[in-house]
Amino acid sequence: MNSALDDRFRLSAEKARELAREFGTPLYVIGEEALRSRVRRYRAAFEAAAPGSEITFASKANSTLAVLKIAYAEGCLIDCASEGEMRAALAAGVPAAKMHLHGNNKLVNELEFAIEIGIGQIVLDNFEEIELLAGLPGAKPRCMIRLAPGVDPKTNAKISTGQADTKFGFNIVDGSGERALLRALELGVEVDGFHCHVGSQLLDPEAQVSGGQLLAEFAAQMKARHGFETQVLNVGGGMGIRYTEDDEPMAPEDYCRMICEGIGSALEGSGLNPKLVQEPGRSIIGEAGVTLYEVGAVKTVPAAQGPRTYVSVDGGLSDNPRPALYGSPYPVEAISGDGRALGEPRAMTVSGRHCETDRLFADKMLPGDLQRGDLLQVLCTGAYNSAMASNYNRFPRPATVLVRGDGRAQVVQHRESWDQVLAREALPEGLS
Amino acid sequence: MNSALDDRFRLSAEKARELAREFGTPLYVIGEEALRSRVRRYRAAFEAAAPGSEITFASKANSTLAVLKIAYAEGCLIDCASEGEMRAALAAGVPAAKMHLHGNNKLVNELEFAIEIGIGQIVLDNFEEIELLAGLPGAKPRCMIRLAPGVDPKTNAKISTGQADTKFGFNIVDGSGERALLRALELGVEVDGFHCHVGSQLLDPEAQVSGGQLLAEFAAQMKARHGFETQVLNVGGGMGIRYTEDDEPMAPEDYCRMICEGIGSALEGSGLNPKLVQEPGRSIIGEAGVTLYEVGAVKTVPAAQGPRTYVSVDGGLSDNPRPALYGSPYPVEAISGDGRALGEPRAMTVSGRHCETDRLFADKMLPGDLQRGDLLQVLCTGAYNSAMASNYNRFPRPATVLVRGDGRAQVVQHRESWDQVLAREALPEGLS
Repeated sequence: MNSALDDRFRLSAEKARELAREFGTPLYVIGEEALRSRVRRYRAAFEAAAPGSEITFASKANSTLAVLKIAYAEGCLIDCASEGEMRAALAAGVPAAKMHLHGNNKLVNELEFAIEIGIGQIVLDNFEEIELLAGLPGAKPRCMIRLAPGVDPKTNAKISTGQADTKFGFNIVDGSGERALLRALELGVEVDGFHCHVGSQLLDPEAQVSGGQLLAEFAAQMKARHGFETQVLNVGGGMGIRYTEDDEPMAPEDYCRMICEGIGSALEGSGLNPKLVQEPGRSIIGEAGVTLYEVGAVKTVPAAQGPRTYVSVDGGLSDNPRPALYGSPYPVEAISGDGRALGEPRAMTVSGRHCETDRLFADKMLPGDLQRGDLLQVLCTGAYNSAMASNYNRFPRPATVLVRGDGRAQVVQHRESWDQVLAREALPEGLS
Repeated sequence: MNSALDDRFRLSAEKARELAREFGTPLYVIGEEALRSRVRRYRAAFEAAAPGSEITFASKANSTLAVLKIAYAEGCLIDCASEGEMRAALAAGVPAAKMHLHGNNKLVNELEFAIEIGIGQIVLDNFEEIELLAGLPGAKPRCMIRLAPGVDPKTNAKISTGQADTKFGFNIVDGSGERALLRALELGVEVDGFHCHVGSQLLDPEAQVSGGQLLAEFAAQMKARHGFETQVLNVGGGMGIRYTEDDEPMAPEDYCRMICEGIGSALEGSGLNPKLVQEPGRSIIGEAGVTLYEVGAVKTVPAAQGPRTYVSVDGGLSDNPRPALYGSPYPVEAISGDGRALGEPRAMTVSGRHCETDRLFADKMLPGDLQRGDLLQVLCTGAYNSAMASNYNRFPRPATVLVRGDGRAQVVQHRESWDQVLAREALPEGLS
């Protein structure tokens, strides 16, 4: 398999020290060129495989306004999973017509908001939603029908969504997908086509290809049975990235070609020629971001397998919950704080500073002389880090800095202030 | 074993409907009397077993200002794990002298802040910190030395902290604890005594009793070897609560008695009579809080074991990450939205509405006729829910309401506004 080049965004030691000094740590850093080049490459690859296709950036991965603005400027539509994500995209200057709204349980006021702003598409997820939407006042947006194609991808169960046993979408196998289409049409809902999303961080494209094929076969059936002309097929996102050296993500050119070939063969003879859409999130922004931490306490303790060295950093679970949530690995690189050459590597465990075990990265090969004031650069944190950050232990959330094409660094998400950390509190009068 | 009564805080159906109507959902609700009575019972139990003892509320579990204020008013000291938690306690009116500061990697400015406000105690965690603290200007606070006693409790590995292989504290077995004491004394740091914390959600007190005994034996040794007179022994928190019907948490009376007996026998003949301290968090606030959700989409899909019904609620991973983080179970109770009698229970899966699988509670027995607009009351969410909440998918974080002794409900943490959700964003000029 022709794997993608390793061009994960990383800071030089000098730049990392400069940013840590100027903006403090922990710090999320996004590389503008890394982000733009990923969008361009993905778009070009998809366009080559399917002329007229579109990509929709999955803003759940990172809805920092600057990221949304860049993705949109580079030709992405924006995929939103909530009213908050729609509001973020609007604030980033994205026209509502260029957004899609997803969700297994869209709230009534979320649907109303989507209608009010004139959203491009709503991806219908369940029968109640079809009825709800049809009953709401205002001009109805165009819709897609989300299908559960019944494929089980090879990924973490928590981020696997395409199997039959899922909260998302309408199953094909039990006839729900077909009934949903008919009911929507009956109620006058304008259906553009079908959507599926089989899972995330997929390094093996098999499930994605199957998902696309099943979607296309379903579209062909709906034409044959009901004369329904599918205009759009959206096969979701999910292409994996290089979290570890063992990960071999596909080149987007190969990935797009395989998906399009699968769809093409399934559509053959159907007379359908739908626009194809993908919804990448992680594969666009994941490798374009890093996190900088400053090293604090370094401690060696007795452990079953021999002494273990804990390197504690100034963040943790609150700025990157993915190791604790999914056991996700990350590449970690050491940068000396004072410019000295670093020593020979040995295995160490990088921990956060929260009030629980908060083990971020176990058994990383890091310089044996790592010490307080040195920096760690964690690669591939552009996706699902700032988006999932919390105030656990009342830690203020980190700033995000954008490194521009010309090397300038600009804050695109301010570090949380103490006032903001305590902003929602209210002490009732007379409480004592 | 004499287990605690089941007196978990829960709302009546009528009250739940009233609060959902008035404050919206998802909604965290804290019962004032449930909280106060837990502090009182724990304090009385500890006082009976060890006259003159103190309890310190672990604010990491829930640092809502109203909760801190009530805990302090009921006689707790406040245990803080960060500058943010100290700031929250100050804002709740807790004097700094009544706080302790913990942390495996306290930042320099965190230590400076603690000194500036005049914190009651700093719990020293590593050798660098001893040197750092000794080198800082200002009157030095009294200190405790955190020990890793080398006991391995029966709980989730992520919340187990007392084993030798931990980022926390000084190991007893390798001599680090003794060296830390001597170094601190050499540098003129005033050491009150020793601290340990073996883990969280402990239903079996064995590890906690062992931890206390090892702490006490160490204190006796330090007196015998170095003439050091321990004034305080803090055995941490960790008493489990009734998350499921199978959990049999101990009565605090038994728990405190067993711990104190263990310590007492270890101190016998040492001539030491230290003040005993415990640091409960979850066991004070966990069962005193519930979360209310409104039911949205209900969907039955084909699954390997037969059809599965997904009940989607209007929150999820962002307001309760513990099921995804630790596989934590929670009790879930259904409340009809319209006051009708609910039907016979059958197994259902409660899911959140995030953009991933976001399965909150699988295979819960819930009324078969559960429908949109009904409510779910999740018990035992007082601890580590609002404290760990995020804005994942740009969901605004829920409000917290305090149900007063007289039944009035008052907002103590406002629902996050859209302005707040987007407050930290900055779009650089000229970005396009």
